[in-house]
Amino acid sequence: MQRAYNFSPGPATLPLQVLNRINQELFDWQGTGVSIMELGHRTEQFQNFLKQLQFKLKKLLAIPDNYQILFMTGGAQGQFDNIPLNLTKNNQNVDYLITGIWSEKAAVAAKKYAKVNIVTQITNNYQIPEPDSWQLNHDACYVYYCTNETVNGICFKQLPSVKNIPLIADMTSSIMSYPVDISQYGLIFASAQKNLGIAGITLVIIRDDLLDSAHPIVPTVWNYKLMALHNSGINTIPVFPVYVMDLMLDWLNEQGGIEVISKINQLKVNKLYDYIDQSGFYCNKVLAQYRSPVNIPFNLYQTGLLAKFLKEADAANLKYLNGHVSAGGARASLYNAMPLSGVEALIDFMQEFAANN
Amino acid sequence: MQRAYNFSPGPATLPLQVLNRINQELFDWQGTGVSIMELGHRTEQFQNFLKQLQFKLKKLLAIPDNYQILFMTGGAQGQFDNIPLNLTKNNQNVDYLITGIWSEKAAVAAKKYAKVNIVTQITNNYQIPEPDSWQLNHDACYVYYCTNETVNGICFKQLPSVKNIPLIADMTSSIMSYPVDISQYGLIFASAQKNLGIAGITLVIIRDDLLDSAHPIVPTVWNYKLMALHNSGINTIPVFPVYVMDLMLDWLNEQGGIEVISKINQLKVNKLYDYIDQSGFYCNKVLAQYRSPVNIPFNLYQTGLLAKFLKEADAANLKYLNGHVSAGGARASLYNAMPLSGVEALIDFMQEFAANN
Repeated sequence: MQRAYNFSPGPATLPLQVLNRINQELFDWQGTGVSIMELGHRTEQFQNFLKQLQFKLKKLLAIPDNYQILFMTGGAQGQFDNIPLNLTKNNQNVDYLITGIWSEKAAVAAKKYAKVNIVTQITNNYQIPEPDSWQLNHDACYVYYCTNETVNGICFKQLPSVKNIPLIADMTSSIMSYPVDISQYGLIFASAQKNLGIAGITLVIIRDDLLDSAHPIVPTVWNYKLMALHNSGINTIPVFPVYVMDLMLDWLNEQGGIEVISKINQLKVNKLYDYIDQSGFYCNKVLAQYRSPVNIPFNLYQTGLLAKFLKEADAANLKYLNGHVSAGGARASLYNAMPLSGVEALIDFMQEFAANN
Repeated sequence: MQRAYNFSPGPATLPLQVLNRINQELFDWQGTGVSIMELGHRTEQFQNFLKQLQFKLKKLLAIPDNYQILFMTGGAQGQFDNIPLNLTKNNQNVDYLITGIWSEKAAVAAKKYAKVNIVTQITNNYQIPEPDSWQLNHDACYVYYCTNETVNGICFKQLPSVKNIPLIADMTSSIMSYPVDISQYGLIFASAQKNLGIAGITLVIIRDDLLDSAHPIVPTVWNYKLMALHNSGINTIPVFPVYVMDLMLDWLNEQGGIEVISKINQLKVNKLYDYIDQSGFYCNKVLAQYRSPVNIPFNLYQTGLLAKFLKEADAANLKYLNGHVSAGGARASLYNAMPLSGVEALIDFMQEFAANN
């Protein structure tokens, strides 16, 4: 078999080195005589591993000391409910910036627990309205946004100015792609199946002062404060997804860290946007300044050719290029693990397909 | 390295055949050119796989047609909150049988959402009071119990008589160990890291008529009805833990299914209890009729020897025999994947240790 270039938006491609390490350690993890999948989460070996993982995260993301690093279940969408459950004990006002389908889903979920104010909303031409038009709520518990919308291919590059209100960001698809200043945030979260490994675990980084605002009805295993007190061990942590996250961090460190990978990412994405824009055959409608550096949705000008494009791409070992079911079209997701050679192979194929059709 | 006998209560030992299949399919799952960890949950390949897994579960457990098979996140403890969240929209009465620490935790969690009635509670001598002393609530939304308490080593072999009230069971540690009649239950659940693979996924089997009773504030990804409507795909399902569950079912089918494995399990557990009882050196205090067929806690009559016992067992490749932190002592967990040879090796070691001390 030939390993495919996998452009899936998530679960997404893993570095071959990570799969190799899983393979090497599968039957006996660090001399324990058992696979890490079989290792009790309360063993000394696993607890030491977890501390080291948290240390690696702290170093890579420069997480300040007054933040907790939690590993949660329920995926990023779980956090859509969990954030208002944990932060608005008195059904207070909360502010949401809507820049695509994920931030919209988050705002809808929050209405169950809090008074939701929509600060701004993307317009049809894929444009985020200018900040001076935003309706920020000065007594909001928090301001919520999504750094990168995977379906719409829109990235929020500005840091919203929110003064003293805690800023919350869904960084599921952008975490570790480019440097961020964690100290600007009250809480960030990311489910793992893009740049942090595989589906089944969600990283939550939360500032200490936000740990005391939970609704009384928040489920125990979703309670940030209890999770912080038990170092994410209220119940059995999904051991294997956490392990793969650790392998991803080791791999990222071997690449040179976030600064280095962000330059490679920029190179990858520029190549693809440049080709799309000059092709006359493919198009991406997002205004240049809002374009995602990770997920590139595109369409073919010629109607009726999409199915053929996707089928032939698949046959050429360029897999899972279909757009999200709600958006249609095609989409290439270029997370950290997608090598430049994959983007070049995609562009070669797109050129050939355009020439033939 | 020599593979250890792993007596961990969970995450627990996997059959070597399951680890071998993970190994074989790691880089290319079923000709997709990608690992199953990298496979999108909405792909046709994964959706077909999921349907086949549900079919295997249905067949192995003889699940009637009027039940939904759901894959949830949050572990078994997540269900402690999720069950009352989904089944008591008007804060109704609910009945709990307390036979150990897990059912007690479930009852405590339910108090956030419903009026909890404790039907009965184990007494200090590890005895479940007789059913004629139980205080059942005739207008309860459901009656809840735990089939097997892993910490206390207590098994609830009788099916509680609850007339028309839906019966709910935490089967985390007993599912697939011995035959059960699903049609007697309104809902059963089991987190995977004992007999269904690895941590990160929880199986919920729920009767259709219970899908319409959710609190308005139940988090979206925890809503049974929505999960049933979306076939557990509201958001990204933890692909890899679900895949390992499938491998476990294939392995169980190769062993001959639940009837056959339950006989092997009985043989394993009888050997160990018989040895403990006649040893004069080790003891298990649970009354014979309540003894767990899966988790065997035991102590040494001689005080001060436990640490030495655990250390020497570990050196003899008999791993993770320590009891739960709340109970102390030692404990051997004998899930389906623990072979008879592991139990025999343990008894040999226990005999030798007793002779030497």
